[in-house]
Amino acid sequence: MTEIPTDLSVLNMIYKIIEDRSKNKPEGSYVCALLDDPKGINKILEKVGEETTETIISVKDGNREDIISETSDLLFHILVMLFECGVTPDDISAELARRHKLK
Amino acid sequence: MTEIPTDLSVLNMIYKIIEDRSKNKPEGSYVCALLDDPKGINKILEKVGEETTETIISVKDGNREDIISETSDLLFHILVMLFECGVTPDDISAELARRHKLK
Amino acid sequence: MTEIPTDLSVLNMIYKIIEDRSKNKPEGSYVCALLDDPKGINKILEKVGEETTETIISVKDGNREDIISETSDLLFHILVMLFECGVTPDDISAELARRHKLK
Amino acid sequence: MTEIPTDLSVLNMIYKIIEDRSKNKPEGSYVCALLDDPKGINKILEKVGEETTETIISVKDGNREDIISETSDLLFHILVMLFECGVTPDDISAELARRHKLK
Repeated sequence: MTEIPTDLSVLNMIYKIIEDRSKNKPEGSYVCALLDDPKGINKILEKVGEETTETIISVKDGNREDIISETSDLLFHILVMLFECGVTPDDISAELARRHKLK
Repeated sequence: MTEIPTDLSVLNMIYKIIEDRSKNKPEGSYVCALLDDPKGINKILEKVGEETTETIISVKDGNREDIISETSDLLFHILVMLFECGVTPDDISAELARRHKLK
Repeated sequence: MTEIPTDLSVLNMIYKIIEDRSKNKPEGSYVCALLDDPKGINKILEKVGEETTETIISVKDGNREDIISETSDLLFHILVMLFECGVTPDDISAELARRHKLK
Repeated sequence: MTEIPTDLSVLNMIYKIIEDRSKNKPEGSYVCALLDDPKGINKILEKVGEETTETIISVKDGNREDIISETSDLLFHILVMLFECGVTPDDISAELARRHKLK
């Protein structure tokens, strides 16, 4: 049984779910709909752009629940984008650790 | 001694660094420059918008290193935005776990 | 009978159409759907953000027809946004003429 | 002597200025700096994305002067983008006239 992280480690788990959906293609999967969209990567990039706009608007509106909801949407679509590009959580982690001189 | 995570858990650590910079205001800190910008939250939102555009362009160009670099920039600025809004990694984690029915 | 301009003067005409739709609310009008959306101005801003992303992607893809189509979408939604904000073509024109030292 | 239009026809004039700058490359020209940037078209697309974010923020802030200023910035950079893509005001005009059934 896997423990659910109560912090951003949850993103690793979601990335794994995206990997799983892509492999097993369960019916009605939103991830598969995105990955198999005829527009290809453009569809995912459109979603990233769209969610960024919605996140920015939610911050300007100052509604805490909307900020959490829109940012979650944005992070999810960034993970789908990374997966589609063959970039892993480890690649991002290594880059961020390097920049912030974590060692 | 803290172990450096090799996955997206690193974002929790970066969020803590942002908290620390905000509190201790070390000279030359980029985080402080963002947080204290006279434009206020608008400055951070502009950065989030800017990094999203650069991420989208990097994906279209298909250069793996650029994708990693631009997405890291984007994630970092999203964390600064969340911090400035008083939203924690746990808030985002709870929302994502709820949506993806993690338990 | 009004002559149709073959250049960007057409934007003035489209702005007038937006004004007309807002006033007369013809059934099935897309402009009215935007203006009366329960999200208010946020809906229009989301469209502006969305069309910008699509325009950027179309330029990266280098398909001339798509660039024309997406940019037209973007310009149209900018006009709806300006209308909703009470900003007229003349306001924009005065600012652009001032900047570019037209006289 | 050319009369200065008091409406969005001014965009045609600005497009011609962009063409002129590109051809004659006057020293210190911002248009030339954009067109000759080593990042190429990416630089212009970054500006389009950036100005869109600033426009959206200005609308949320509701400051009329900022809305006029940021939208003017955005329209200017859209024109530079179109020029760099070989798309003319007439191309956009024809598309918009077609959509809005102007005849």
